[in-house]
Amino acid sequence: MEFAADAFLPGPRAFLPGAPGGPLAGLSFAAKDLFDVAGHRTGGGNPDWAATHPVPQAHAWAVERLLAAGANLAGKTITCEISLGILGFNPFHGTPPNPAAPGCLPGGSSSGSASAVAAGLCDLALGTDSGGSVRVPASLCGLYGLRPSLGRVSLEGVCRQAPSFDTVGWFARDAKTFGRAAEVLLGETLPQATASRVLAAEDAFALADAAVAEALAPAVSRLGALFGGATTISLAEPGELEIWGTQRNIVQRAEAWATFKDWIDAVNPRFGYSVARNLAVASMITAEQIELACVVRRRAVERARVLLEDGAILCMPTTPFTAPPVGLPLAELDRLAGRIGVLTSFAGLAGLPQLSLPLGMVAGKPVGLSIIGWRGSDARLAAIAQALQ
Amino acid sequence: MEFAADAFLPGPRAFLPGAPGGPLAGLSFAAKDLFDVAGHRTGGGNPDWAATHPVPQAHAWAVERLLAAGANLAGKTITCEISLGILGFNPFHGTPPNPAAPGCLPGGSSSGSASAVAAGLCDLALGTDSGGSVRVPASLCGLYGLRPSLGRVSLEGVCRQAPSFDTVGWFARDAKTFGRAAEVLLGETLPQATASRVLAAEDAFALADAAVAEALAPAVSRLGALFGGATTISLAEPGELEIWGTQRNIVQRAEAWATFKDWIDAVNPRFGYSVARNLAVASMITAEQIELACVVRRRAVERARVLLEDGAILCMPTTPFTAPPVGLPLAELDRLAGRIGVLTSFAGLAGLPQLSLPLGMVAGKPVGLSIIGWRGSDARLAAIAQALQ
Repeated sequence: MEFAADAFLPGPRAFLPGAPGGPLAGLSFAAKDLFDVAGHRTGGGNPDWAATHPVPQAHAWAVERLLAAGANLAGKTITCEISLGILGFNPFHGTPPNPAAPGCLPGGSSSGSASAVAAGLCDLALGTDSGGSVRVPASLCGLYGLRPSLGRVSLEGVCRQAPSFDTVGWFARDAKTFGRAAEVLLGETLPQATASRVLAAEDAFALADAAVAEALAPAVSRLGALFGGATTISLAEPGELEIWGTQRNIVQRAEAWATFKDWIDAVNPRFGYSVARNLAVASMITAEQIELACVVRRRAVERARVLLEDGAILCMPTTPFTAPPVGLPLAELDRLAGRIGVLTSFAGLAGLPQLSLPLGMVAGKPVGLSIIGWRGSDARLAAIAQALQ
Repeated sequence: MEFAADAFLPGPRAFLPGAPGGPLAGLSFAAKDLFDVAGHRTGGGNPDWAATHPVPQAHAWAVERLLAAGANLAGKTITCEISLGILGFNPFHGTPPNPAAPGCLPGGSSSGSASAVAAGLCDLALGTDSGGSVRVPASLCGLYGLRPSLGRVSLEGVCRQAPSFDTVGWFARDAKTFGRAAEVLLGETLPQATASRVLAAEDAFALADAAVAEALAPAVSRLGALFGGATTISLAEPGELEIWGTQRNIVQRAEAWATFKDWIDAVNPRFGYSVARNLAVASMITAEQIELACVVRRRAVERARVLLEDGAILCMPTTPFTAPPVGLPLAELDRLAGRIGVLTSFAGLAGLPQLSLPLGMVAGKPVGLSIIGWRGSDARLAAIAQALQ
């Protein structure tokens, strides 16, 4: 039941001019429909969410920040339902097109934001990323897209999902524009592009399609060349990244269930089957399962500290494949989402910033190379992106 | 997200005149939107079911039969999504009103059919009953409603759910009209109203609200008086009816999952949360669980044989309470559905006919007394209903 749609929500466009003369003057941006825009309903990608929440009276912090910096709001974009979905389909609003891979899924949950930027409908777009919702559409649509360090960008006025994973990120088509928005949203001037070491996670590359790993190899070399060469390392023990994927799912879904359960109990809302199913599975997660998953999380945090705290940059494929075609059966979509989750879990578990760079192409479709740094290195990642472009 | 709706589907009404001069001439009927009416889409209460199934070219057997007998088709009625739901809400088409209990749920899944008959919009209506979908709305809307013996009425042209439970039933406001339809749909003249014994299931009455049991007591006495007195018995051992409820759920849901899984995989359809959740739970039922439940089912069949094969009639409350108000939270709806399922499971597990009679009132709201006979006693139940009225 995927049907093609615009990247923007149907109906009257939420248009607001930015403040005159700011650092982003002349740029336009879109906001995922999880961000409050005063006077416009925050729909969350679901008709029953829209119908049961009041019209916000204030802008979300990030929307306000971009408007104050002079960017014009072009509209609100389609999102997967209440941010749950990694491939970008939405049975209520339709699946935004992937301008970089026609006939293919855009990735999600910030599907419309990536679609709008990739189509050139705006220069920047706000998204959220809990389990990969900025990184994945950035990779599949050929964009720069950052999942910031946990807590780095204010979530005020944004629908939450899983508090220990939720972040506000953004997309741009080029590193320069991306960096201009980074200075505004991070509130700091971009530093020098530095890295104590460049690490290539061979176990992560091994989980990607061979053509993807091959397509990203030149970018890894260029990245290494900037900082004295890339070192191949294993992010974890054999088979462990898959476990990080399943255990990240446990913690994130349990948090999502805690976020949404009262609303679900009160409203019994409509959902696409896969979203409802995942929530139903989440509702059955036990305290013992969560405790176990948290131990695995500590292991990922410790690996991050060992590898990255000294200023190293880790690189890996953002997604293990390029954009899948529209219209696949659910079992196949689930399999693909599972493979994606294995690669997105490290930064989510450890609260790290991860920036996807559009530096690979396979058979005419883009795929992203991710650079990951220690917590707080967000602006440095943006600077490295500019140095690489 | 319950919103009030008409009993009929929105849009152009499926109207067809019956054949002239038949035994049902002058009567009108409605068909639940699980029944094929040639030239009209069978929507199954779900927009994605409707969109992914072709317009039928032939009438369902029961629709054809009633038309041939002279009844006029007044339209198609709202159903719970793909027949899954016992309380009667539908987030896509709205919740049909309960004319007998304003502001309350009509019961389901044959919600619109019961609503239409109770409102006097037609004389008869077709429904389906797998887990109680005719019996429950009959009880809550104050109607005569039969779940026939398994296999007694053809299911040709009807959306299936759980093959070892699915039946085609119907509603009427009075026993006379109910019996006229029974002769047509069962294809036999109503026999004498006879019963070798009348058994009142005290364990089933004990599971109903005290006011319900009290309200039905005079009807039990009248039923007993017709056939030499009512004998109080226990249908099962203490606590066993609840187990029949849970194990009937296992078998029925596993069958429903087998029915719908390929469609769900292909379409990833939208559902109300509770429907999707129940399907997701069904998808996790193991073969071992089903084998265990089938042993419990054999026990229920054996109890039915011992109690009913000699021509006895068993009576019990159809539902343990009157119609619940619209707008309850999901946890409460689940609790109520669970209590209903304990009482509806016996006939479903054993393939028995069960006729709900509108013979009780509690605080102005109706509640049904059920009479249950051995397999094939359908017409006799209709005759007993006439003798009682």
